[in-house]
Amino acid sequence: MIEKKSENLIFNGQQFFYSHHSDTLNCDMEFSVYLPPQSKNKKYPVLYWLSGLTCTAENFTTKSGFQRYAADHGVIVVAPDTSPRGAQVKDIKDEWDIGCGAGFYVNATTNEWDQHFKMYDYITKELPTLIKDNFNCSDKASISGHSMGGHGALICSLKNPGMYQSTSAFSPIVNPVNCPWGQKAFSTYLGEDIELWSAWDSVELIKQGHQVNHLFVDQGLADNFLDNQLKTDALKQACESKKINLELKYRQGYDHSYYYISSFIGEHIKWHAQFLN
Amino acid sequence: MIEKKSENLIFNGQQFFYSHHSDTLNCDMEFSVYLPPQSKNKKYPVLYWLSGLTCTAENFTTKSGFQRYAADHGVIVVAPDTSPRGAQVKDIKDEWDIGCGAGFYVNATTNEWDQHFKMYDYITKELPTLIKDNFNCSDKASISGHSMGGHGALICSLKNPGMYQSTSAFSPIVNPVNCPWGQKAFSTYLGEDIELWSAWDSVELIKQGHQVNHLFVDQGLADNFLDNQLKTDALKQACESKKINLELKYRQGYDHSYYYISSFIGEHIKWHAQFLN
Repeated sequence: MIEKKSENLIFNGQQFFYSHHSDTLNCDMEFSVYLPPQSKNKKYPVLYWLSGLTCTAENFTTKSGFQRYAADHGVIVVAPDTSPRGAQVKDIKDEWDIGCGAGFYVNATTNEWDQHFKMYDYITKELPTLIKDNFNCSDKASISGHSMGGHGALICSLKNPGMYQSTSAFSPIVNPVNCPWGQKAFSTYLGEDIELWSAWDSVELIKQGHQVNHLFVDQGLADNFLDNQLKTDALKQACESKKINLELKYRQGYDHSYYYISSFIGEHIKWHAQFLN
Repeated sequence: MIEKKSENLIFNGQQFFYSHHSDTLNCDMEFSVYLPPQSKNKKYPVLYWLSGLTCTAENFTTKSGFQRYAADHGVIVVAPDTSPRGAQVKDIKDEWDIGCGAGFYVNATTNEWDQHFKMYDYITKELPTLIKDNFNCSDKASISGHSMGGHGALICSLKNPGMYQSTSAFSPIVNPVNCPWGQKAFSTYLGEDIELWSAWDSVELIKQGHQVNHLFVDQGLADNFLDNQLKTDALKQACESKKINLELKYRQGYDHSYYYISSFIGEHIKWHAQFLN
């Protein structure tokens, strides 16, 4: 059961926000879904967008301008929230990179976190079923995201061969086991046994032999997080060593913001559309 | 003296936020300015955007997606705040349609409001001087806006023949003397003498003989405020009776939101560019 929260016409398509009770996350969740024009008459494919730290479903939906391109290319776009939310969901006050707004798209296993923080199962199991049950969409799907969500897109795709036609990411955290954001999140959600972390790290998954079809990574060179947190080069090296065909575009002068995303989201949607349609 | 608050690259142009002390408004103000690519080498014209009730400089800048079109057409876009702000500025708690966030682009004359609420002088005198002094722009300017700001664009243009090459508005409040938002604002800022209000009302100004060159008004037909507050038809009738060539486009299914604005801002910028370049 999904409940419509809002509906607005944009580029002749419908932008919705819905809420629903998630059995996976044990809380109510919101997501946005954009239906391109004519979607009543035709089954369109779905692009899932995973947002980054501190975001909700709203940032991408209101700031990226993706709707113009989704309308042009006939793609349904679904943007879920970044974590479980609500009074009953564990959070840590004043910490923006753990808890609410920071689900990291993993399945938490540690005490106090494992009751709600199962974002991986939510994104790869519950949400796609919900979308198929409630919207007129084709069987094809792709996935993209930004920062923490860019990494989310990578691991969802690497761990589920064939589930997504294509995978792209803006400014992904590619190797969380080797950066401060990732280490903080993984020690919290997965515990201190570092061996267990590699199942949730894109570079480690690639080293283990996981493959991904059609991979496009976008990275701004004026991104303050590039050297310390994102470490794009580690993904490039892992893909090279495992013969994964990574399309990697560095963008001179662009940072980590939605100003950057809005400049290139059209290119990503066009790129995904060639595999989806 | 303007102080840069932020700078982001978007569509190969620079999106800035600046703050400065406004002598007109007796407070510090923020505005955003977008410089299209190559603006160091060429003097581009300026489009002023006036936002609606409750907005700051941020809404249009982050939600409309205008930068893509401003980059394409070579237009500098300046988006000021909607009112004076700050601890010393009079406001009325819990009222979103008066005081901070609701300047109505008039010069207040009533006690307690006349020390700060001079948005008309700010928009038509102080801000253009500030822009000319600090940015490499041509002498040509146009103006646009949304809702309260759409009406602001209309009156700034009607009261200053020749100052703007072209004028457009999304969902403007066209006849504030005849709607609840306008009556509340005008009685507060201008006092109870209704005769004085007509100098700040676009329909009344047109009836008095004021003219405007190149006028484009955009209105969604699913706009909840259309019948009670906006009253677009009054502008249409006034323009017809005074032989003003109004280009009026009604948009089936579109509402009052930035989803609507983002769908058509490209059309407006293209339209302004033909008069600016």
